[in-house]
Amino acid sequence: MSATDGIALVDQHCHGVLTRDVDSEEFGTGLAEAQSAGNRDRFQSLLGLAVRRWCAPVLDLPPHSPPEDYLARRSALGWREVTERLLAAAGVEHWLLDTGYAVDTSPAELAELGGGTGHEVLRVEQVAERLAARADSPAALLDRFRAELHERAQDAVALKSVLAYRSGLDLPGDQPTDDQARHAAGDWLRAGGEQLTDPVLHAWVVHEAARVSAEQRLPLQFHTGFGDADLHLHQVDPLRLTHFLRSTQDTGATVVLLHCWPYHRHAAYLAHVYDHVYVDTGLMIPFVGTRAGGVLAETLEVAPFESLLYSSDGNVLPELHHLAAALWRHHLGRLLDTWLADDVLDTNTAERLAHAAGAGNATRLHPRLASRTKH
Amino acid sequence: MSATDGIALVDQHCHGVLTRDVDSEEFGTGLAEAQSAGNRDRFQSLLGLAVRRWCAPVLDLPPHSPPEDYLARRSALGWREVTERLLAAAGVEHWLLDTGYAVDTSPAELAELGGGTGHEVLRVEQVAERLAARADSPAALLDRFRAELHERAQDAVALKSVLAYRSGLDLPGDQPTDDQARHAAGDWLRAGGEQLTDPVLHAWVVHEAARVSAEQRLPLQFHTGFGDADLHLHQVDPLRLTHFLRSTQDTGATVVLLHCWPYHRHAAYLAHVYDHVYVDTGLMIPFVGTRAGGVLAETLEVAPFESLLYSSDGNVLPELHHLAAALWRHHLGRLLDTWLADDVLDTNTAERLAHAAGAGNATRLHPRLASRTKH
Amino acid sequence: MSATDGIALVDQHCHGVLTRDVDSEEFGTGLAEAQSAGNRDRFQSLLGLAVRRWCAPVLDLPPHSPPEDYLARRSALGWREVTERLLAAAGVEHWLLDTGYAVDTSPAELAELGGGTGHEVLRVEQVAERLAARADSPAALLDRFRAELHERAQDAVALKSVLAYRSGLDLPGDQPTDDQARHAAGDWLRAGGEQLTDPVLHAWVVHEAARVSAEQRLPLQFHTGFGDADLHLHQVDPLRLTHFLRSTQDTGATVVLLHCWPYHRHAAYLAHVYDHVYVDTGLMIPFVGTRAGGVLAETLEVAPFESLLYSSDGNVLPELHHLAAALWRHHLGRLLDTWLADDVLDTNTAERLAHAAGAGNATRLHPRLASRTKH
Repeated sequence: MSATDGIALVDQHCHGVLTRDVDSEEFGTGLAEAQSAGNRDRFQSLLGLAVRRWCAPVLDLPPHSPPEDYLARRSALGWREVTERLLAAAGVEHWLLDTGYAVDTSPAELAELGGGTGHEVLRVEQVAERLAARADSPAALLDRFRAELHERAQDAVALKSVLAYRSGLDLPGDQPTDDQARHAAGDWLRAGGEQLTDPVLHAWVVHEAARVSAEQRLPLQFHTGFGDADLHLHQVDPLRLTHFLRSTQDTGATVVLLHCWPYHRHAAYLAHVYDHVYVDTGLMIPFVGTRAGGVLAETLEVAPFESLLYSSDGNVLPELHHLAAALWRHHLGRLLDTWLADDVLDTNTAERLAHAAGAGNATRLHPRLASRTKH
Repeated sequence: MSATDGIALVDQHCHGVLTRDVDSEEFGTGLAEAQSAGNRDRFQSLLGLAVRRWCAPVLDLPPHSPPEDYLARRSALGWREVTERLLAAAGVEHWLLDTGYAVDTSPAELAELGGGTGHEVLRVEQVAERLAARADSPAALLDRFRAELHERAQDAVALKSVLAYRSGLDLPGDQPTDDQARHAAGDWLRAGGEQLTDPVLHAWVVHEAARVSAEQRLPLQFHTGFGDADLHLHQVDPLRLTHFLRSTQDTGATVVLLHCWPYHRHAAYLAHVYDHVYVDTGLMIPFVGTRAGGVLAETLEVAPFESLLYSSDGNVLPELHHLAAALWRHHLGRLLDTWLADDVLDTNTAERLAHAAGAGNATRLHPRLASRTKH
Repeated sequence: MSATDGIALVDQHCHGVLTRDVDSEEFGTGLAEAQSAGNRDRFQSLLGLAVRRWCAPVLDLPPHSPPEDYLARRSALGWREVTERLLAAAGVEHWLLDTGYAVDTSPAELAELGGGTGHEVLRVEQVAERLAARADSPAALLDRFRAELHERAQDAVALKSVLAYRSGLDLPGDQPTDDQARHAAGDWLRAGGEQLTDPVLHAWVVHEAARVSAEQRLPLQFHTGFGDADLHLHQVDPLRLTHFLRSTQDTGATVVLLHCWPYHRHAAYLAHVYDHVYVDTGLMIPFVGTRAGGVLAETLEVAPFESLLYSSDGNVLPELHHLAAALWRHHLGRLLDTWLADDVLDTNTAERLAHAAGAGNATRLHPRLASRTKH
């Protein structure tokens, strides 16, 4: 019995799953942060090993079953049965879905498949981009963005920015002026108003989101670190948010650093020196497989235990939602067992740490979760 | 019996302790590299666990005593008794105090509380800032700085720069000319001559310190890496000193990289390629608690054993001075025991490594220690 | 019996050895990535411990023999006997020699000393620099470089760039135009045409090499990360190649990231998102000694197993060629044993991983190896 057993998790950042069967190529693509499965056998990775070790038994196969057997069994059961089994076995109470990617399933639909309750994480860039398609003028776009963000945030439990995938995380501490933002918005609209990439307008948008975070007590999540080939890893070190974190630290806003690897020590440092910063230890876990314990240990070096959050970043394949939970329980549990054996802490403290990291901190950070839970 | 037992340590970089009782909020602040205890329970961290595990028994409490019990016991004993016990149990022979921060205790006073001998580490920025308050002209300021640094260094055992906290570590390889420095000093004096932040003048000052380091055979310490919210972690990677290290490598100057985490591998690399560079493995140890072994192991990957130094960076709370020593002994000892069990080295070599890292290298690097020891 | 036993390795990046006896100072220099042995005892390092532990028995000495004994035995046996023993015990089938450094031995000569087959890795900068010495005009230089690179590549099994040691790895995604290259070449020739350091011309040269890589199916190797004091570690993070990797990903070129430490996680990330990128886990292994397992584990976090390559970067001293193999076998074997014990994978998969990393991936990546092997 380890300290992580039985915790009803808050998966505070994930996406929907595909609601259809996939072939082996699509499955391989889902196992890589790459735009296609490419030429490589994606099962030949720590993530691939983890699928065979942890997911196969959920589908009634022996651990380490060959990839072909796993994929055949997956097809035989059908996507719905596979998804229901994998999600249910994750033991998640709240699914917080970024609805900006992998949108086959809404938060409610994912919860129906996996048990627990679904909630929306609102991607702020998408609010801006949808408005741009029908904006009359730059000034009207900014006004409407402010109003719509405020309004749509009422229905969400968190905000999310993908700044990392656009201009990188070098966000200025001061919000650009409305004049600067209007100017940038004008250029954007003239260019067609598709993907938001202008760094000035983007910074203005993110600072608006920080204001809503403060006003409505919603955390603002940032993708940082590991991601697909669309980003430049150098540009997404969470330390690049330092000026922004300084300027928001006394406003009431809260900031969640997602993913973080290989900059998880940097993220932990930011959570150490800024009380409004939280560090997400969940995302990388499925990808690094059995190395999850090592990555968690490095994160814990300076991260306040009260700043730790769990998530899966699961998307497309429910294996990711499942593995994050299974590996988090196994490896954090084992790390705590080792520390108990080494007399580093006592049992009560180990249990408190595990519960805080898996659910307690997220529940405190998202006051709306309690009021929006199904009964 | 491990290789680190019984070594009389040289704590080659620490600060004074408070000479009064503290309340729980002040204690919490002391456990964080943050400007206030903030909203977080600072005992909920690996450092907090280490206090409960290692310091509680020194105060006659069981290991893992609850924070309330620890703080109550601390109050009951009073600051002096607590300080004397914790410092004495650290087993330190030489305390090298940076007198620029946490100044309640002088080097002699700390040594009186903790046993051993106290020595001054002279903070070069403070020399400049005190002179600026009463400088007649920029030219006079530079002249007096040179003279005073030279003179005050005679009484110190090391120099220290906090460049990291000002403009960051991007130090040019060449010293700015006196003309450039005078120009910058003029601006500074006109602006009030308070904190030294001008990068040109600061670079000039640090190069002067490097000259004194060479002339008087005193090491020049740099804060690098982990620190509070006043610094930008990106700017304090020790690799940013590369040009400076190249230009000083044949001058007789010696450079100590303090703290280093999360850039301890970078610091170890610099010590590998530059013979006048030393890497301090002590500072982070109290903060990362039970992860000290992991951080030490990473540092040892390429650091020459002869470049390793011990310090605590202890300040305000004597718990930090104590924990650095206790954790260093425990975790380096354990790492060496593991390596002995794995047939990586023999016992003699393990003992030699431990002694070099804890005392021998520091003694060789600071020739003045021997002549200034109390008998 | 571990999964790495008995694998006939492909050492896909090494250099020649000295064909004469060395004194203790030269030996010390060979143990450091520094330009001289300096003041430090280079045996006092994890690499030094590894020499005593792993090489001493090959010379009939007990493990952990003192350095003096090791050097005395080395002298008594003579360089040829020492070299033959150490290389043979490495168990290498193919030696891929970068002939641009440590040139006492040709690929064939190394193979004659150590068994197996030697092959040339062509250093592209050297092609340009040799031509510059006798170029008639900038335009002629570029033409001849193109022709000679194409021709000499026919005899090589891989190309190699030392861009890291010149302007750093900030390589543009687009090749500079021939006009720009001619202009830069003109400046270079007027300045004497010695070492290629101009970033524009260098970028042009490397893009030419990428074209040959695609046309002739030869991998293009880059020095990244750890190296001697000639490089600035900040400038050689493999992530700086991101734009170049994006632009070459669909051309048929293949890229090998050599050395990588302390940026091995970055290199692994690049291999994860770009299918034409390979990550070399061999180089750092002799230097980090017993920490090889830790570095390998970090690399494996996200690196596709199919992207892993072995090398020694051995040069000057055959101890390095030997230690890379001995430590790779021991520590990767041990890591896999631990994972087997922890039920992370099955035996077949462990063996497949070990074989892929030690030989299989390199054989697939270098189709010419098969056809050029002695029988």
